[in-house]
Amino acid sequence: MARVTALFVTTLLLCLDSFVFGDPAIAGDFELVGRNATAADFVFTGLRNVPSAGPGLGFTAVPVNFRSMPILRGQGISYTYYKYAPCGQNPPHLHPRAAELLYVIKGNLTVGLVDSSENLYVNDLKAGDVAVFPRGLVHWQQNLSKEETIAILAFTDSNPGVVAVNRALFSSKVNVPDYVLQTAFGLSKGDVGKIKASTPLGAPLGKCINECGGCY
Amino acid sequence: MARVTALFVTTLLLCLDSFVFGDPAIAGDFELVGRNATAADFVFTGLRNVPSAGPGLGFTAVPVNFRSMPILRGQGISYTYYKYAPCGQNPPHLHPRAAELLYVIKGNLTVGLVDSSENLYVNDLKAGDVAVFPRGLVHWQQNLSKEETIAILAFTDSNPGVVAVNRALFSSKVNVPDYVLQTAFGLSKGDVGKIKASTPLGAPLGKCINECGGCY
Amino acid sequence: MARVTALFVTTLLLCLDSFVFGDPAIAGDFELVGRNATAADFVFTGLRNVPSAGPGLGFTAVPVNFRSMPILRGQGISYTYYKYAPCGQNPPHLHPRAAELLYVIKGNLTVGLVDSSENLYVNDLKAGDVAVFPRGLVHWQQNLSKEETIAILAFTDSNPGVVAVNRALFSSKVNVPDYVLQTAFGLSKGDVGKIKASTPLGAPLGKCINECGGCY
Amino acid sequence: MARVTALFVTTLLLCLDSFVFGDPAIAGDFELVGRNATAADFVFTGLRNVPSAGPGLGFTAVPVNFRSMPILRGQGISYTYYKYAPCGQNPPHLHPRAAELLYVIKGNLTVGLVDSSENLYVNDLKAGDVAVFPRGLVHWQQNLSKEETIAILAFTDSNPGVVAVNRALFSSKVNVPDYVLQTAFGLSKGDVGKIKASTPLGAPLGKCINECGGCY
Amino acid sequence: MARVTALFVTTLLLCLDSFVFGDPAIAGDFELVGRNATAADFVFTGLRNVPSAGPGLGFTAVPVNFRSMPILRGQGISYTYYKYAPCGQNPPHLHPRAAELLYVIKGNLTVGLVDSSENLYVNDLKAGDVAVFPRGLVHWQQNLSKEETIAILAFTDSNPGVVAVNRALFSSKVNVPDYVLQTAFGLSKGDVGKIKASTPLGAPLGKCINECGGCY
Amino acid sequence: MARVTALFVTTLLLCLDSFVFGDPAIAGDFELVGRNATAADFVFTGLRNVPSAGPGLGFTAVPVNFRSMPILRGQGISYTYYKYAPCGQNPPHLHPRAAELLYVIKGNLTVGLVDSSENLYVNDLKAGDVAVFPRGLVHWQQNLSKEETIAILAFTDSNPGVVAVNRALFSSKVNVPDYVLQTAFGLSKGDVGKIKASTPLGAPLGKCINECGGCY
Repeated sequence: MARVTALFVTTLLLCLDSFVFGDPAIAGDFELVGRNATAADFVFTGLRNVPSAGPGLGFTAVPVNFRSMPILRGQGISYTYYKYAPCGQNPPHLHPRAAELLYVIKGNLTVGLVDSSENLYVNDLKAGDVAVFPRGLVHWQQNLSKEETIAILAFTDSNPGVVAVNRALFSSKVNVPDYVLQTAFGLSKGDVGKIKASTPLGAPLGKCINECGGCY
Repeated sequence: MARVTALFVTTLLLCLDSFVFGDPAIAGDFELVGRNATAADFVFTGLRNVPSAGPGLGFTAVPVNFRSMPILRGQGISYTYYKYAPCGQNPPHLHPRAAELLYVIKGNLTVGLVDSSENLYVNDLKAGDVAVFPRGLVHWQQNLSKEETIAILAFTDSNPGVVAVNRALFSSKVNVPDYVLQTAFGLSKGDVGKIKASTPLGAPLGKCINECGGCY
Repeated sequence: MARVTALFVTTLLLCLDSFVFGDPAIAGDFELVGRNATAADFVFTGLRNVPSAGPGLGFTAVPVNFRSMPILRGQGISYTYYKYAPCGQNPPHLHPRAAELLYVIKGNLTVGLVDSSENLYVNDLKAGDVAVFPRGLVHWQQNLSKEETIAILAFTDSNPGVVAVNRALFSSKVNVPDYVLQTAFGLSKGDVGKIKASTPLGAPLGKCINECGGCY
Repeated sequence: MARVTALFVTTLLLCLDSFVFGDPAIAGDFELVGRNATAADFVFTGLRNVPSAGPGLGFTAVPVNFRSMPILRGQGISYTYYKYAPCGQNPPHLHPRAAELLYVIKGNLTVGLVDSSENLYVNDLKAGDVAVFPRGLVHWQQNLSKEETIAILAFTDSNPGVVAVNRALFSSKVNVPDYVLQTAFGLSKGDVGKIKASTPLGAPLGKCINECGGCY
Repeated sequence: MARVTALFVTTLLLCLDSFVFGDPAIAGDFELVGRNATAADFVFTGLRNVPSAGPGLGFTAVPVNFRSMPILRGQGISYTYYKYAPCGQNPPHLHPRAAELLYVIKGNLTVGLVDSSENLYVNDLKAGDVAVFPRGLVHWQQNLSKEETIAILAFTDSNPGVVAVNRALFSSKVNVPDYVLQTAFGLSKGDVGKIKASTPLGAPLGKCINECGGCY
Repeated sequence: MARVTALFVTTLLLCLDSFVFGDPAIAGDFELVGRNATAADFVFTGLRNVPSAGPGLGFTAVPVNFRSMPILRGQGISYTYYKYAPCGQNPPHLHPRAAELLYVIKGNLTVGLVDSSENLYVNDLKAGDVAVFPRGLVHWQQNLSKEETIAILAFTDSNPGVVAVNRALFSSKVNVPDYVLQTAFGLSKGDVGKIKASTPLGAPLGKCINECGGCY
């Protein structure tokens, strides 16, 4: 069951948002199409029993955005809830329309950020810590411990969007022309093909060293 | 010790923000005055050991905004972390510059909202639930259970501001002229004085019914 | 006749705006749905003969916003025109989406404002004076004189919204749970019920002292 | 005295705003440089006794913007108060950073607007009427009656700016190169010089027909 | 053929945008109504063979905005491409919703700008030069050389709008009332009629001096 | 000389913008610190003689933004001018704060874009073509021809920022931890080291096939 849900959740993550529109300005308090609001519209209860990541998957994620909670449309805010398996990684990515503020609910999490001046910032977070990732910058999270880590991530848009840059570049599904990647990374055509074959399409899972005294 | 900290935190909440400026547009990735960023600037660790509310107080709160985490300036996002005692209440208030998205980390929390059409929406949240409060609307939270409740609240501004409307109207410190309140509420001068005397200046704490099968 | 109109206007004020949307960005000069503009679209003539407040009512108000003047949609501006009876009060309220700039056309008006640092600012305005109320802050106006006062109020939105905080808290129509108000104001259940019963649902009218050498 | 003031006011209007900055986003309730606010900061009393236009001048105008009322900075709103002499004209102009909502306090006023599709909209306003002029569009007001007209104009910026297009094109002070105007209007160099010589630098005043049964 | 196209292009320029809406906020990456995007949607190829201005016309212009390239809607950017005949002029105009950044591809171009403080700035640009025109300010371009000039102009809106102030004031099609122009420019009714008759409705063309050692 | 300049320009590109702030809202027409504007402030002439890319470099780029042209601050627009050598590539990158509109001045250019739904859009542009790249999405340009290509790129910010994702991930200077890249791309530590060693730090240059009937 957990596995099915995890797959479902991963699919939801991959079914992304180019053609769905989320956060244009509204002028009323809130906006629901074609009906009045009830108290239940202001609450999302889908995070009560989120399953852990299934075998071979790095994380389970549940977005609380304008699709799962329609009244968020136009409110300029959303959450995504993550359960990271040991060595589970939210791969290098960015949000084209949002800054992010992450809170670690349980466990440990190592987070990284590269700014537009090509400075690297890496932090080891413990439960209770908060980290910020400015809009449009490449960042990632990885659980380097042997216990599951749980975090909630707030965004400055009800539809922040996500660009996973490992997949935007090397996903076999996207299939960026080889010459582009050969030039950008100084690689041979064969090397590019090898990376395309190995880049995971879903939730990346690293390998534990010494039963997770770290990952590789 | 917990009591001292709780008082400190309450003081911090009361020391509000009219004359401190937080979230003007920035054009770089982020902004720190007079120095380069280090990895530590992107993390806030002050939520690791937040004390429970002291005796007679309804909650402890720790803001993670541009004052406690300066790099948030201009990022358009912040958090406040709450520990609510049994019957503890975040009194009716609003944020002049932000919508809010609340996540219940532990326990139960009853939340209410009045929209600008004077509709009331009340919800009983369990651990894991998310609730939204649109910008500028009166809302509150109260822990009606006998266990401590913990929640984290995200805002769409690094300096959302807060107007506690119980205090804005009836705080003896603010001291709104009696005739204003007499007219607005149809009260006698004596009644107004009585309410001014009883309105708590800090974190309100209700009384438990039957060892907290509810509050009054 | 004046009374009927005043009631109509009050109803209009109470029929608020959660589910009507006003001021999203437009890209053309202006926007009318389904037809070309004519000169008359740019003018609102409904303020020529506004009746005075009817017996027992504190004021008459006529909004000039995107509902009464549709071409205002997206222009980011609107007016409300007020006639305040002696001791008439626009009760403590705020606008979730707009700052306000008030101009006294005739008479005297006492205005108050509480900022988010809980400072109180009260001013006695004469005809010709201008007062500003920043976005999202609690403010009020009351005519403490024995003559009718007339003012026009400009807002930074074609649909600014209004939250009357006396009613958001204690209106018998909204009916906020008693325990919330007991906790927030340190009151008994009986006291809360009494305030709910006396809080006016419409335009509050104070009582004149010595034929209006002040109100209570 | 009235004349002196009117000249002063006109000078104030001509001393425009390229190098003074007004309305960047602020994050607090309001902003004053270097000191706390007092009640008086929220009020502007300079409209109590505005003189009528002096001889030969079409109007007196008093701006209530962030320069005359510093606390308006960042509030996104301002007023200008006008007294139009018979045949007095606020010449064709536009506001680069604001829409405008005009209210006629006393008298009659004819207003015109040209949209970006080159449609003309002209309206004859009476006391109490409201007219809107969208951002960046050419518009004007003229008093075609034989009585003074008074109006107040609200703007969606604390520093809306004004471009008087009669002066931007033909003012002898600006002195746009003759060939530009010859080409744009199909005129001879002599004609351009003649218009430059006759274009008023201040508040234009038309001539009354039959003691103001209209102007020319 | 070139003439037909130039007329077509001029018509397109004159068929302006009051009632077409262009650039409201979108929340997805981009927005196309009723279908998925293909690669061709991201490209506009209509500038490959732009004809020169026809006889008697000052320029040819082709807008690349949300009408000619629908995927630009909501992207906040557009171009217009210009071919200026010798002495061809883009007459004094402004954009109500955009700043402009001009790049000279070929030839020479003299550009002028009047700011809201009535300062004049004139520059003689050569191929490769860039000039900026802030939002809402009157500006113009004219080719004072004897060779065709080509430039591309970027705007900060997918639907910037244009107000040609020569036509907004004196176009015989708009037909602003004579008394307005008489007052604003200190002219007789006869003079106004003369200027209305001579103001070109389309792309103005100056006259060359000494085979274009300048224009008049 | 060309080589020196190209290196200079590349350095300029690499000296990026985290700690310089560019485009906060201004309220005047424009903003220069500490002095009045002159005509020259509105023009940038540094594109007249841009050198071609030096040996081994893929392109020369000259930004026209608020650093090279200070009056652009707050105007919400900028350009970058590119000369691409045969097989020269602007590597996969994104702009955290801007959409981009590219115009090909001379030659051919192949451009690619991956949206946040992981769709790939590739286009072969000819001289005169325009292509749009929405904000925050990964895109690239490469000259697959044997002639130099010239293009100008407009951005919706005076300080758009750039994140070259090839370098953000694999630059030896940034040096993202190996385990992050191993997990994200399913690679061995050795493979990651190899890519780090080969990823160019500056302007990437592909290799021509058959004297540029394509690149690899």
